[in-house]
Amino acid sequence: MKELEHTLEASFGIVFEDGSLLETAFTHTSYANEHRLLNISHNERLEFLGDAVLQLLISQYLYLKYPNKAEGDMSKLRSMIVREESLAGFSRDCGFDQHIKLGKGEEKSGGRNRDTILGDLFEAFLGALLLDKGVEAVSNFLNQVMIPKVETGSYEQVKDYKTQLQELLQTKGEVSIVYTVVNEEGPAHAKQFQVQVTADGQVLSQGQGRSKKMAEQDAAKNALAELT
Amino acid sequence: MKELEHTLEASFGIVFEDGSLLETAFTHTSYANEHRLLNISHNERLEFLGDAVLQLLISQYLYLKYPNKAEGDMSKLRSMIVREESLAGFSRDCGFDQHIKLGKGEEKSGGRNRDTILGDLFEAFLGALLLDKGVEAVSNFLNQVMIPKVETGSYEQVKDYKTQLQELLQTKGEVSIVYTVVNEEGPAHAKQFQVQVTADGQVLSQGQGRSKKMAEQDAAKNALAELT
Repeated sequence: MKELEHTLEASFGIVFEDGSLLETAFTHTSYANEHRLLNISHNERLEFLGDAVLQLLISQYLYLKYPNKAEGDMSKLRSMIVREESLAGFSRDCGFDQHIKLGKGEEKSGGRNRDTILGDLFEAFLGALLLDKGVEAVSNFLNQVMIPKVETGSYEQVKDYKTQLQELLQTKGEVSIVYTVVNEEGPAHAKQFQVQVTADGQVLSQGQGRSKKMAEQDAAKNALAELT
Repeated sequence: MKELEHTLEASFGIVFEDGSLLETAFTHTSYANEHRLLNISHNERLEFLGDAVLQLLISQYLYLKYPNKAEGDMSKLRSMIVREESLAGFSRDCGFDQHIKLGKGEEKSGGRNRDTILGDLFEAFLGALLLDKGVEAVSNFLNQVMIPKVETGSYEQVKDYKTQLQELLQTKGEVSIVYTVVNEEGPAHAKQFQVQVTADGQVLSQGQGRSKKMAEQDAAKNALAELT
């Protein structure tokens, strides 16, 4: 926790009044379950709160940035921005993955690099920050960590490439597009996946990334680059 | 709008800096569509924002009020509290239904008393308040209008009575429970419905309310009182 506290202060000027909130945010249920007798709090309740403050701040950001977008379009954009893989990426960017407390089984099976766990962790941290410092502090933090990436549209890519490839190929009728993991290497916290994409059995391209999904997107992106 | 502004100031001490936000919050799409050439803004975008701020504030309220409730339970409670019929009721409590601008067709077909329209209106108002005065002001408003009712559990009743009655009757096997509107009176903005509930054709009780749903709940409540 000391190292995390130091990082938060150095990188974002954040010092928690109530350190137990931070502690709870970084405690996964699997760790709390393993130490049941100690009655440790885990981060699910904070995640509930963090999810809500994130939804609000992204909604407000979209409302102000796109004065002409309809409700439905803002809603779609928002769900792309706050989706699990994107939040997990922000957790990794902040180095949060190094500090979460996991149960032994979860640690062994690679939980430290799992998108669901890291996405929830990011939300739980926002929930803790909200309780400790209020909505303005959460907004400031997101403006440093998340909004710059949102502005460059990098959150959009994950959805786009696979959809774009599918749309491009299906203009000529039904095509079966298959993504296959052809290689997987590195330790749990720094895995690299290699994925190959085929259309009706014909290899189009390959791609890589920290998760299967990211590698698939990279493969689709490369395929698009070759085809168009 | 003048009358609405007066009510807001007198009842809640709210004076909008930017009156156009209030105007937009009280403009239904049907009105904007009818005056397309005037390019009037309607309330759907504000509703998007208001929904998000409402979710956050209710989440925070539940988090602090129930330190031992799990995420899933808070989530269920929240969805009961912010459901459409409940928000429509708060719109009516504030007299908002008197001030919404509707298209002629919508007005004719009773839109002024429709839960979807009034629920969305309540959210749109919260969105306008958020933009004009910030999250604290929305929180203060909800503390006056909504939280007292939530505290008394009155938001819970709508779900409970019908479910309770069904559960009670089905302990003895399958039973067909039917709710029928037997009377409907009053002007559009102050309708009263009378509903009768039967089990396998046998009349159990009657109930009344400002909407069919509320009258059904009232009938179920009365039936429960007689049966238990």
